Amino acid sequence: MKVAILGFGIVGSGAYEILERSGYSVGKVLDIRPHKELGDVLTSNFDDILNDKEITVVAEAIGGLEPAHTFLVKAIKAGKHVVSSNKHLICTYYDELLTLARENGVTVRFSASAGGGIPWLHNLRRATRCDRITKVFGIMNGTTNFIIDAMISDNSDFSDVLRTAQSLGYAEADPSADIDGLDTARKTAISSSIAFNTEISEDGIHIFGLRNIKKCDIEYIKNKLGKTVRYIGTGICEGDKISAFVEPLIIDNDSLFASVRKNNNMISLEGENVGQLSFFGQGAGKYPTGTAVAQDVIDILSGDIKSLTPGKKREVDNTAVSKSYYIRTRADVPSCIIESIDVDGENKYIITKEISVFDIHSISKEILNKDGGSFFAGIER
Amino acid sequence: MKVAILGFGIVGSGAYEILERSGYSVGKVLDIRPHKELGDVLTSNFDDILNDKEITVVAEAIGGLEPAHTFLVKAIKAGKHVVSSNKHLICTYYDELLTLARENGVTVRFSASAGGGIPWLHNLRRATRCDRITKVFGIMNGTTNFIIDAMISDNSDFSDVLRTAQSLGYAEADPSADIDGLDTARKTAISSSIAFNTEISEDGIHIFGLRNIKKCDIEYIKNKLGKTVRYIGTGICEGDKISAFVEPLIIDNDSLFASVRKNNNMISLEGENVGQLSFFGQGAGKYPTGTAVAQDVIDILSGDIKSLTPGKKREVDNTAVSKSYYIRTRADVPSCIIESIDVDGENKYIITKEISVFDIHSISKEILNKDGGSFFAGIER
Repeated sequence: MKVAILGFGIVGSGAYEILERSGYSVGKVLDIRPHKELGDVLTSNFDDILNDKEITVVAEAIGGLEPAHTFLVKAIKAGKHVVSSNKHLICTYYDELLTLARENGVTVRFSASAGGGIPWLHNLRRATRCDRITKVFGIMNGTTNFIIDAMISDNSDFSDVLRTAQSLGYAEADPSADIDGLDTARKTAISSSIAFNTEISEDGIHIFGLRNIKKCDIEYIKNKLGKTVRYIGTGICEGDKISAFVEPLIIDNDSLFASVRKNNNMISLEGENVGQLSFFGQGAGKYPTGTAVAQDVIDILSGDIKSLTPGKKREVDNTAVSKSYYIRTRADVPSCIIESIDVDGENKYIITKEISVFDIHSISKEILNKDGGSFFAGIER
Repeated sequence: MKVAILGFGIVGSGAYEILERSGYSVGKVLDIRPHKELGDVLTSNFDDILNDKEITVVAEAIGGLEPAHTFLVKAIKAGKHVVSSNKHLICTYYDELLTLARENGVTVRFSASAGGGIPWLHNLRRATRCDRITKVFGIMNGTTNFIIDAMISDNSDFSDVLRTAQSLGYAEADPSADIDGLDTARKTAISSSIAFNTEISEDGIHIFGLRNIKKCDIEYIKNKLGKTVRYIGTGICEGDKISAFVEPLIIDNDSLFASVRKNNNMISLEGENVGQLSFFGQGAGKYPTGTAVAQDVIDILSGDIKSLTPGKKREVDNTAVSKSYYIRTRADVPSCIIESIDVDGENKYIITKEISVFDIHSISKEILNKDGGSFFAGIER
């Protein structure tokens, strides 16, 4: 039984080193770039892997949809177990890959796709075996946590902190997937799909981005509200409704999430039996994320090959969850939702009455049309 | 394949309900008390379980050393996998049970023995497969965390909070195993044994208890040091030395552990590849701890039966780890270890120079001989 790794970038090379050091032999690595140190193990032809009977597990760390998707489908059809670190791919082809794996008697694992080095999806899947999970929520994106933490600690501007994050390699040259919430939305979709035994598409998830946060927001939250803020993805299953949303969330200073500093992640579940479980660690990086890929591979090689049953696809319905919101804007806000308001120059600082996630997002569109720099944050109940 | 549960107390009945609700059939329950609801499943004769070929997993939730130990040895010798929630038993017979299990081709799991509902030992064991663990540390005892948290939040006396904890069922009538540190020491021993692939006896672990903590300590730590305190078990592997100790630890207010409130637990590991991982949740209770037992059972029924290899027994050596300590005492303290001192009436509040865990414990004996109410706490570096 050998493993093949597709893609020898940061995550793929991390997983390779960890597996080799731990006594698990990597039979083939697929990469189009030369890597002398890999010798015969390197190939640029996927068929070398597909046709190698000794290779029973294929771990994908290429990123993007194609050719990763085609490779994984072929691997599954050839009876190989697959592991992926690719949240875009898992989010897009969740049902197809899980169904195909079931039909072919193999398993699909993708722990590295949410939580990086944190064994989050592994433990979430394990929890569903003997508990009803009612909520998944947490700090799922290191870049945005780094930005918020630095803004709070150093009283810095968003744009300055973003540049620092980019120079440290914590943020991409194009940071929009992080700061506009798509990355967190995908991780929320994957986590909710597993937790609630369903398939949630990232498209239905309401998102407030972090891009518009300013010093004055941090100061208002700190000095006027006596609280702090984190960027949180949430999925909730209540009765037959599934809510899922991503937003800056104003929380108490002594909350567990408030102590998550720098680019760390912390993700939680609530189970009817077990109560709240929270998992903290590095959400990215060569060796942490490489560890998550390696652990999935080792689970499979150890005989733990039970597949997830793909649940029925369900639409997100954000009418069921309500709370107050903080809005900083220059635009008019419907007076019926305002609980309190402070005015400072052209800026209005508004705390809303309790309002559903669905309603605040409908209203936010008008407000953002008038003032594109408006900032929205939920307030934890 | 069926499971038997030994002991139908809080943990045993929690595990029973969770397994039955999750579709896993419990074949037999051993208890000497009557439980009508169990019908034929109940037996008071262990041989009924031992001789039942359908029962492949025996989960022990009796507590204490005997007859639990004898039952588990017999079960292993009969080729049954065993699960235990019993930290006293696991600590005492760690090597014997693991060796016996290996010889008989079965596995021993004991996730519920440290961390309660937190999947701590499961994840620790999993982490050792592809990482070198250098440290395990955390809040492993809910009673002491409840006491510290209430003393800090409500400015209460130790004895008042202890009574509240007892009336809420968070503390035993005889709370000494909790407040004198034995419970945390056992969990530290088990965690260190797994993390460092060895066998650490609880006897070698240096303990500073929590029993002597007073309002004036909380106030000094808060107002003079600007910090807070938690009750922490620590195991460290550095080079060929293993340190293990239990102590009140003075930590920064924004530390992850500082946000662990009430009777919750949080336990962490540091791995060379994965960095710090922390696991938060309920450290006790019928359904949380019952979940940990049920999860071990389900792992085994799912084919995950790899045994731990019992590591070589090693002595704790606390000479390698040094830090400053806080001492509140009326006795004389050797001046060579004093970094700073405040005096208030008969009490001296001392911050020591950096000193090894071994040395401070040697010195503490003399100090406690002269003033039995002296309080010691480490200061996180």
